[in-house]
Amino acid sequence: MKLVPLGDRVVLKQLEAEETTKSGIVLPGQAQEKPQQAEVIAVGPGGVVDGKEVKMEVAVGDKVIYSKYSGTEVKLDNEEYIIVKQSDILAIVK
Amino acid sequence: MKLVPLGDRVVLKQLEAEETTKSGIVLPGQAQEKPQQAEVIAVGPGGVVDGKEVKMEVAVGDKVIYSKYSGTEVKLDNEEYIIVKQSDILAIVK
Amino acid sequence: MKLVPLGDRVVLKQLEAEETTKSGIVLPGQAQEKPQQAEVIAVGPGGVVDGKEVKMEVAVGDKVIYSKYSGTEVKLDNEEYIIVKQSDILAIVK
Amino acid sequence: MKLVPLGDRVVLKQLEAEETTKSGIVLPGQAQEKPQQAEVIAVGPGGVVDGKEVKMEVAVGDKVIYSKYSGTEVKLDNEEYIIVKQSDILAIVK
Amino acid sequence: MKLVPLGDRVVLKQLEAEETTKSGIVLPGQAQEKPQQAEVIAVGPGGVVDGKEVKMEVAVGDKVIYSKYSGTEVKLDNEEYIIVKQSDILAIVK
Amino acid sequence: MKLVPLGDRVVLKQLEAEETTKSGIVLPGQAQEKPQQAEVIAVGPGGVVDGKEVKMEVAVGDKVIYSKYSGTEVKLDNEEYIIVKQSDILAIVK
Amino acid sequence: MKLVPLGDRVVLKQLEAEETTKSGIVLPGQAQEKPQQAEVIAVGPGGVVDGKEVKMEVAVGDKVIYSKYSGTEVKLDNEEYIIVKQSDILAIVK
Repeated sequence: MKLVPLGDRVVLKQLEAEETTKSGIVLPGQAQEKPQQAEVIAVGPGGVVDGKEVKMEVAVGDKVIYSKYSGTEVKLDNEEYIIVKQSDILAIVK
Repeated sequence: MKLVPLGDRVVLKQLEAEETTKSGIVLPGQAQEKPQQAEVIAVGPGGVVDGKEVKMEVAVGDKVIYSKYSGTEVKLDNEEYIIVKQSDILAIVK
Repeated sequence: MKLVPLGDRVVLKQLEAEETTKSGIVLPGQAQEKPQQAEVIAVGPGGVVDGKEVKMEVAVGDKVIYSKYSGTEVKLDNEEYIIVKQSDILAIVK
Repeated sequence: MKLVPLGDRVVLKQLEAEETTKSGIVLPGQAQEKPQQAEVIAVGPGGVVDGKEVKMEVAVGDKVIYSKYSGTEVKLDNEEYIIVKQSDILAIVK
Repeated sequence: MKLVPLGDRVVLKQLEAEETTKSGIVLPGQAQEKPQQAEVIAVGPGGVVDGKEVKMEVAVGDKVIYSKYSGTEVKLDNEEYIIVKQSDILAIVK
Repeated sequence: MKLVPLGDRVVLKQLEAEETTKSGIVLPGQAQEKPQQAEVIAVGPGGVVDGKEVKMEVAVGDKVIYSKYSGTEVKLDNEEYIIVKQSDILAIVK
Repeated sequence: MKLVPLGDRVVLKQLEAEETTKSGIVLPGQAQEKPQQAEVIAVGPGGVVDGKEVKMEVAVGDKVIYSKYSGTEVKLDNEEYIIVKQSDILAIVK
């Protein structure tokens, strides 16, 4: 089973292990909007979303910083995913 | 009797049994926005909705993850349905 | 006397009796948004409403499921009606 | 002295007497949005309002049902009027 | 010194004396939105305001009914003025 | 060091002394939205801001009345400035 | 590792030391919206963001005043960054 996102949505898998990496990324806790690093698992087709043309700019395998505030958590086959709109992705980590 | 949705609305039937399937989908509870897996029962015609062209991208029989937050529950002939806008459907499960 | 709705508004008459019909439609109570079944009594002309072209898709006599949340109740000649915008109608029951 | 409304505004005079007419219109009280029957006294020119073309669809002398929620009460020469936007008028009573 | 309003703004001078005129205009107090009669002192040039073309429809010397809700009071040379957007003016009194 | 505003932003310097001038401008205190007189120090280039064409209509040296509600205070070289959007400027004082 | 911002986003690095510089920039504390001086580290490509064409007007190395209100803090390789939308940048300091 796999998740095929609609429109401008992107399926992410959180990179939890890296939070403890020595020289890696550390994300400070925030009350309402918790930034997160994650890997892109699946990317929606984009196109016209809410009357506006959206071009997808992330690709499967990208490591990204996203704002968890409006994402939705889903468990599939005992794996946890987060589904966000591309506009909730702030930056790609290269 | 059957429900014929208007505009960009989609009639869903919740897949409750699968929540306990061993290697299936488990959906964690959330206070305000409870993601759900459901089967598509009927799909509106799309077209111009609130001044914006909407193309329907789900089909009858699709299994989908939706955000229950703005859906409406309806009982017809003792069956329960949920009517959502297509934009409340996050992903198709394949 | 009759009600002639403006713009994208629709005059409905609630089908209360059917709530107790054995194999009919039963609508669960909800705190803020109470879905309802009703018959269409009169349909506005549509056209440009709030700067957006609206095409009317329901007809007099249709049985519809609507979201009562933003409707307005009116009594005329001792009959009670509800006036809603077409976008508050979720589905036609056929 | 008379009121000449601007844009899509309409000057109404409430028909209070009819609330007690036997087979007339009875308007149930509502906490936040109180529907009302009134006669149209003056109609603005319409045109481009808030960037959107508005065509006036009510005429002086029409009896209308309006939603009082955003109207403004004004007293002129000891007569009370209500000024509403045309979009606050729900239906014409014929 | 004089006030030259920008965009769709209008400088008004409140007509306070008339509130006690016998057969004049009496404006009932309201908690949040207090309608007012005033004279137009200066009119902005209109044009494109917030991306929308606005044509000014009031002229210096007009007596108008406005909604005080979003106006701003200013004192210049010991005279008090109110600066409103034209869309806060409901009607001209003729 | 100087501030070069972006888009439709304007750098202002508050004219505090004039508040006590005998026949000058006196600005009454308001709880949420405090009108202010200020001198224009720098003007952004305008252009397309939030998808809308904005033409700058104030010039360096203008004395203006602005609504302080959404402005931002900045100190540079021990001078205090306020940065506002042009739409927060209500009128020019001439 | 480096952060590559998407759309109209800009990666900033706060200039904390300058807050204590004698004749430099001092930023007063505010409860909800805390203006900040920072250096631009990376600039997104701009383009169509939320259906609107955005042209990037800041460059790497610019010192800017921004409104921290909607920015997101991220730590990468023990360095702290802030990711903002370009519209949250008020002015360039030259």
